[in-house]
Amino acid sequence: MLTDRLSRDLYAEICRIPLIDPHSHINPHAAAAKSLDDILGYHYYTELAHSAGMDQGPLGKDVPSRERVRAILGHLDRLDNTAQYSWFLEIAQTFLGFKKGRVGADDCDALCDMADRLMSQPDWEEQVLRRSNVEKIFLTNDFDDPLDGFDTKRYVPCLRTDDLVFHLDKPAARERLAKATGIDVGNADQLQDALGKLFQHFTQHGAKACAISLPPDFAPAAVTHFDLTLALGELVAGNDSVKDACANGVFWMLAEHCREFKLPFDLMIGVNRRVYRNGVYQGQDLFDQRTSLIQYAELFNAFPEVTFPISVLTSAQNQELVSYSWIFPNVVTSGHWWYSNIPAYITHDARARLQAVPKTKQLGYYSDAYKLEFILPKYNMYRRILAEILADDFVRPGAYSETQAIALARLLLRENTKRIFGV
Amino acid sequence: MLTDRLSRDLYAEICRIPLIDPHSHINPHAAAAKSLDDILGYHYYTELAHSAGMDQGPLGKDVPSRERVRAILGHLDRLDNTAQYSWFLEIAQTFLGFKKGRVGADDCDALCDMADRLMSQPDWEEQVLRRSNVEKIFLTNDFDDPLDGFDTKRYVPCLRTDDLVFHLDKPAARERLAKATGIDVGNADQLQDALGKLFQHFTQHGAKACAISLPPDFAPAAVTHFDLTLALGELVAGNDSVKDACANGVFWMLAEHCREFKLPFDLMIGVNRRVYRNGVYQGQDLFDQRTSLIQYAELFNAFPEVTFPISVLTSAQNQELVSYSWIFPNVVTSGHWWYSNIPAYITHDARARLQAVPKTKQLGYYSDAYKLEFILPKYNMYRRILAEILADDFVRPGAYSETQAIALARLLLRENTKRIFGV
Amino acid sequence: MLTDRLSRDLYAEICRIPLIDPHSHINPHAAAAKSLDDILGYHYYTELAHSAGMDQGPLGKDVPSRERVRAILGHLDRLDNTAQYSWFLEIAQTFLGFKKGRVGADDCDALCDMADRLMSQPDWEEQVLRRSNVEKIFLTNDFDDPLDGFDTKRYVPCLRTDDLVFHLDKPAARERLAKATGIDVGNADQLQDALGKLFQHFTQHGAKACAISLPPDFAPAAVTHFDLTLALGELVAGNDSVKDACANGVFWMLAEHCREFKLPFDLMIGVNRRVYRNGVYQGQDLFDQRTSLIQYAELFNAFPEVTFPISVLTSAQNQELVSYSWIFPNVVTSGHWWYSNIPAYITHDARARLQAVPKTKQLGYYSDAYKLEFILPKYNMYRRILAEILADDFVRPGAYSETQAIALARLLLRENTKRIFGV
Repeated sequence: MLTDRLSRDLYAEICRIPLIDPHSHINPHAAAAKSLDDILGYHYYTELAHSAGMDQGPLGKDVPSRERVRAILGHLDRLDNTAQYSWFLEIAQTFLGFKKGRVGADDCDALCDMADRLMSQPDWEEQVLRRSNVEKIFLTNDFDDPLDGFDTKRYVPCLRTDDLVFHLDKPAARERLAKATGIDVGNADQLQDALGKLFQHFTQHGAKACAISLPPDFAPAAVTHFDLTLALGELVAGNDSVKDACANGVFWMLAEHCREFKLPFDLMIGVNRRVYRNGVYQGQDLFDQRTSLIQYAELFNAFPEVTFPISVLTSAQNQELVSYSWIFPNVVTSGHWWYSNIPAYITHDARARLQAVPKTKQLGYYSDAYKLEFILPKYNMYRRILAEILADDFVRPGAYSETQAIALARLLLRENTKRIFGV
Repeated sequence: MLTDRLSRDLYAEICRIPLIDPHSHINPHAAAAKSLDDILGYHYYTELAHSAGMDQGPLGKDVPSRERVRAILGHLDRLDNTAQYSWFLEIAQTFLGFKKGRVGADDCDALCDMADRLMSQPDWEEQVLRRSNVEKIFLTNDFDDPLDGFDTKRYVPCLRTDDLVFHLDKPAARERLAKATGIDVGNADQLQDALGKLFQHFTQHGAKACAISLPPDFAPAAVTHFDLTLALGELVAGNDSVKDACANGVFWMLAEHCREFKLPFDLMIGVNRRVYRNGVYQGQDLFDQRTSLIQYAELFNAFPEVTFPISVLTSAQNQELVSYSWIFPNVVTSGHWWYSNIPAYITHDARARLQAVPKTKQLGYYSDAYKLEFILPKYNMYRRILAEILADDFVRPGAYSETQAIALARLLLRENTKRIFGV
Repeated sequence: MLTDRLSRDLYAEICRIPLIDPHSHINPHAAAAKSLDDILGYHYYTELAHSAGMDQGPLGKDVPSRERVRAILGHLDRLDNTAQYSWFLEIAQTFLGFKKGRVGADDCDALCDMADRLMSQPDWEEQVLRRSNVEKIFLTNDFDDPLDGFDTKRYVPCLRTDDLVFHLDKPAARERLAKATGIDVGNADQLQDALGKLFQHFTQHGAKACAISLPPDFAPAAVTHFDLTLALGELVAGNDSVKDACANGVFWMLAEHCREFKLPFDLMIGVNRRVYRNGVYQGQDLFDQRTSLIQYAELFNAFPEVTFPISVLTSAQNQELVSYSWIFPNVVTSGHWWYSNIPAYITHDARARLQAVPKTKQLGYYSDAYKLEFILPKYNMYRRILAEILADDFVRPGAYSETQAIALARLLLRENTKRIFGV
């Protein structure tokens, strides 16, 4: 697909680097897809098909999965210009033996049949991993995940903390916390103990990161033990006005635990939830560009021992990220997230990072995948762009040899992840 | 002008697509220029010449038009690097038989003479339209425009509503409204009736869109009938403090009428008026980058039946637009507006849209022209960029054939406009 | 280093243009480096080495300079991807006879020895200036700088005013002002007199600009003489709450003096100081992208006679700058500042300026250098980018001949600076 020889050569070499994928939503108990519905049910397709005119009927629970697939395939001709479409086509070609250059509703039955046949093989998961050249994949685990029944060397647990920070006002979240830790949290001491138990459980089960996604107006600040106890008491009593204080207090205490348990704290900054309220599942969130990493300056100052891999949603905030990771030793760049994960923005953002951030402080990419099959096309998109940047900005101008360029790619795709997360 | 063969071929094919220009300021009673003064009087030239050092003397009413032209031409050598200069040069070369590669004060008399001669031909308008390959052009009509005396199939009326939303505090605006509708608006019911009359008048005369330009801090919200009546009463009584409430109420009611009358509502977001207070006519407005489409989330949620073609002023907000139109079915991308309408920004913005927004949801370009002669050079600028993006991102990597690329261009330049506006 | 023939040819021609560098931090009494420590002590290296893992031990006062150099060199392999590394390598190759393509800790002694030997030559400063083809360099002078003992035709004084605007609450700053002017400032009249003395002193010593760096939330507004007197009285009495009023009043009065003394007022917009509080010296400042030039609209309106060369920190604000300098006659674009001074952002920002701002209103670049040796590699970085833009956007599409492209470069690198600052 790359038209330039040098980029193609670099790309081929880069593809040989065994991946460590530092962020995904893979379910380790069902890592690979079992049908085409598992692939096209990914929110990128349901939301784009809906945005392009598909009503939500086919997404209903009771709709036979093949009819849902047919409906989504039937809308792909309205969005075959998108990067997301190209991922699906590459999955069909690579994993399902699809030979054509375009895919649509007419291919529904043949593709579904092929998917059913191939994906039911007992070693399908292994086949996909091998073909994708991926060695380890980080997960996104609920705080009350038992973390058993899977190989945590391959599927690396990661403590996801959105529910703790933003949903502790909900009795269900507090009950889950009580069940997971044996502690009914009503004050700061109890929270401290409960988080300690969670971190112990997670690190004992091989967790290598703590993670959270944050709204654009979040600006973490320390909350005293005393104030947090007051706020938690009010929260439990149903007083919504203390939500922000609790969120700040819990967040800050999580950072303290990251320090104590030596876990990097992945911050995914900028998303507002449920902006399009009638959107499809997972297709409702959007952002507000008016956010700044200055909101995190106190956090970065207060926790020099904690590494913060930062994901952002816009190129404008990426320019901040480039500068903040150039200055703060504990800030590192992390992947190309969600709405930024298209070639036009990846190219711009990755190029700036490569020109101004120490190469040891960059986590090049993560898949964010829900099913293993997406790792390959998403990483290929990134690897093509990386190959072009290395060719244009490093090798051709004489700054790097090809060998050095590949070594840089190895840092971005593997070595930095190993060192920063300790895997 | 394109150096690459594939881009040139694509460009040539793209130029064959008959245009439907979805936004202009053409006066259908004097659509083509009558003299060079009509061309160089365009604010892009007066403001750039002024910015580059020309005082406003030559722009006075009493200055002979040829002297004004000579003054502006005399400053072009200070701005011959700009995209705007290149539009003028292309107009001179295409429409006035100008042979040289540069244009300046020395060319004043020859060019003016030629313009006078050619533009006085009775079929000049037809000549320009034919050469520009444009089939329909949307207008920007004041709410009290009688809309008669021109071919509304060619010049499609569009109800411009800035005066209704932002200037109803001025007696002159209310008088115009009273005159146009027979209703003296002092409460919400009367406003409802008056807007109903305007929409009826416009749709009966072939209007296909409602449009408005909005300041960066505008954040529309529903206003109850009761509150709007109170606010309008105060406004009529001269109380300025209710201006925002009235603006919100009128705006929301316009959206309701767009729903009822099935008109898309063009939102042109981000401009502050009269920032440079002593600037030339139409050369006083600038923007504040600190604005977000999140301000419109409630509107997009409340009116799923209304299509909102959105224009933005910055690449940063374009990244929001890409994401919002990828998620919201009723949000579509619209053109490259004003300060964003230069190649560096068009390229970046169009590329991102083409990679992430369903192709059926993009209005590729509009001329924003005041005189027909500008349609050709502005569209050519866009078509060259589009040809290069299609070559680099679609055809060369093997994602699209040339035929498919041209079909995509046809959507952007014609078919989407036809479908979305129903022309 | 440029792979394309036309760009290379343009670059070679551009390099022949004698530079006038409109902003630096050169100390005219010690303009050139005296050792490698003077080069690697530049905050770009200390902060990047620290960010990449170097503790601050080697930066201590008592550490022998060669050990400091060795420590920094020892961390360069973690940041040899950066533009900043490439500047250093080019300095070593151009000025120190370094032959290798990479530089690290092993080269410490040889490089230090060579630097000691070469930089101790009595004509080293002249050699560097000649090789760098630079004719004049603007300085950054404290308001109480005596400005004597150097050639102000070569090293052009510039009145830096941050201390006056933002630190007049500190007794030390007021004492310096009293000592420099003989006036103990406690009210607006005294401030007026004191500033008058400073401007007289500076302009009599050949100063050609007034300059200041400003935080992202600064929004200048006029303060009446009466209110400023009140505020200054409070400030001197130790009341911190009037700091903003004083900052506004002093700033506005500086603009008035720029008008009176016909000095351009360089505004460097967007930096927050001491964001990373434990960062290395000069490596603590970062920005908040949420800032707008609209904050300066009143200033630009109020002082049409004053030219404001504007530096910004982000590409998003550069888009504002492009538009504001396209509209306001007294706003000109100035260089590529600090965190924006890397190729990815320079390319994007310079391209937009070249397409939309009159060419006579652009100050292409400044070195921001602390030592003369940095002028060459920094300008070379810019000149390569400029050559590529001229080749791609002007010469190859046929808009400019090569001669015209070089003439444009001459404006950006020399003629505009001469005309705008009157040197």
